[in-house]
Amino acid sequence: MTETSRPGAATADHGHVEVDSVVLSAELVEGGSVASHDVAEYALWLGDDALVIAQQLGWWISRAPELEEDVALGNIGLDLLGHARSLLHYAGAESGRSEDDLAYWRDEPQFRSAHLFEQPNGDFAHTIARQFIAAHYLFELYTRLQASGDATLAAIAAKSVKEVDYHRDHAVQWILRLALGTDESRRRMVTGLSDLWPYVDELFVDEPLIDRLEGVAVRPSSLRQAFDEAIVPVLAEAELDVPRGFISSGGGRGGRHSENLGFILAEMQVLARAHPGASW
Amino acid sequence: MTETSRPGAATADHGHVEVDSVVLSAELVEGGSVASHDVAEYALWLGDDALVIAQQLGWWISRAPELEEDVALGNIGLDLLGHARSLLHYAGAESGRSEDDLAYWRDEPQFRSAHLFEQPNGDFAHTIARQFIAAHYLFELYTRLQASGDATLAAIAAKSVKEVDYHRDHAVQWILRLALGTDESRRRMVTGLSDLWPYVDELFVDEPLIDRLEGVAVRPSSLRQAFDEAIVPVLAEAELDVPRGFISSGGGRGGRHSENLGFILAEMQVLARAHPGASW
Repeated sequence: MTETSRPGAATADHGHVEVDSVVLSAELVEGGSVASHDVAEYALWLGDDALVIAQQLGWWISRAPELEEDVALGNIGLDLLGHARSLLHYAGAESGRSEDDLAYWRDEPQFRSAHLFEQPNGDFAHTIARQFIAAHYLFELYTRLQASGDATLAAIAAKSVKEVDYHRDHAVQWILRLALGTDESRRRMVTGLSDLWPYVDELFVDEPLIDRLEGVAVRPSSLRQAFDEAIVPVLAEAELDVPRGFISSGGGRGGRHSENLGFILAEMQVLARAHPGASW
Repeated sequence: MTETSRPGAATADHGHVEVDSVVLSAELVEGGSVASHDVAEYALWLGDDALVIAQQLGWWISRAPELEEDVALGNIGLDLLGHARSLLHYAGAESGRSEDDLAYWRDEPQFRSAHLFEQPNGDFAHTIARQFIAAHYLFELYTRLQASGDATLAAIAAKSVKEVDYHRDHAVQWILRLALGTDESRRRMVTGLSDLWPYVDELFVDEPLIDRLEGVAVRPSSLRQAFDEAIVPVLAEAELDVPRGFISSGGGRGGRHSENLGFILAEMQVLARAHPGASW
């Protein structure tokens, strides 16, 4: 097989931005800036967040309540899968592993995603609540990461922030539509938001790794105020209270996960693991 | 709920072409050219073909053997879902039904898709064989449909042909990669092509509807030579024989389907049917 006849070449010709971003980060890596171990670990955190939620969104294709929504959630999932590929490509370069090595050949305790991203799809309102929180968090994160001292992370963030800005808008429109719709859709939206809210705080915890990456990583705690300022007016317009009560203790950055991540990984990894090294 | 706060508005802002095409065909319909009953039926045939295969491709998101391929098959599935939405939107306008009405509220005998499109995903080689046949057929079809006397069909074809041209290229690259790869990948590619080939002939049958739509519909039998001329050199390069043997009697255009369509529809329709009229 020659390089030019690989499907990847055809995909790149199609002009999908996910592939462009991988090429972009690959070029930067080849330009000499292989990540340090700490930077690679940080890229892994962000890449795992995007990968885990992208896999879950794929489930909705062919199952959403409207064809238009099949397309919208499908596109959002593919955007996030693109971010994951860029970040995992960069994370793996330091240790000679590919994005596929990292996606398919790590076990659950080696995943570094925060618990929000592995929360089950639930009903449509749960998925929207998860998207609402995730997209607002990622928008604030990537906005600031564009100024990272690490050129690869800054470039990935610059591309990703435009997409999560749309994802944010998509989730806001659905929050309003469901909360202000029928009694049933409102009840489900209240439940969805309440079930997902315990996983908000973990997103804003400053782990020791962050202290070691001053000027490269974005300090999670620094995002909380902007996150709240964006979220609160939407909930007010939707006539929803900010949920209170149980807060998850998190642990995703340390590899401690809920059982749902096991289900997600089983589905994602089964084919690649059944035929190691095979390309069919 | 006001029209401007619907998620659809946000989706359109994102610039995804699927939505553009629906807007385009909606404008043409509103411009006065509601399809005749026969044209609506023809649009339904083409729309069902695209819808049924798009639903099946969605399954691969999170299950393909490479992250790059997750993205590629996901994008192809969303392209085809876009074509389906445009065609079903146009097909439904004549009888006052929406694209969602047609997708979620028809039963199996009312679907008009050809059998090729409902063949199961099988293993990855089966999916590639199905894509290889489908994309080559659709490319020849849409190329000619651009000259249709029906302006809406011509416009949908003009947009869709660019995308199926890429799908064709994607499938060709995989046919070569699998057929010329390992013994195992070659064995699977031979099996996949052999299992899908019986459903080729149905695509090129001239039903009576086609006779009534001279100058509007493309005559299926007229596509066969170009299809063969495109397919045969690829199979030669892949050192694969054109499969021989069993030919399916088809029947999809008359609503006679294999049991697999039932499974596809069950998954696609369950949420919409469980909550008729609900928008969550």
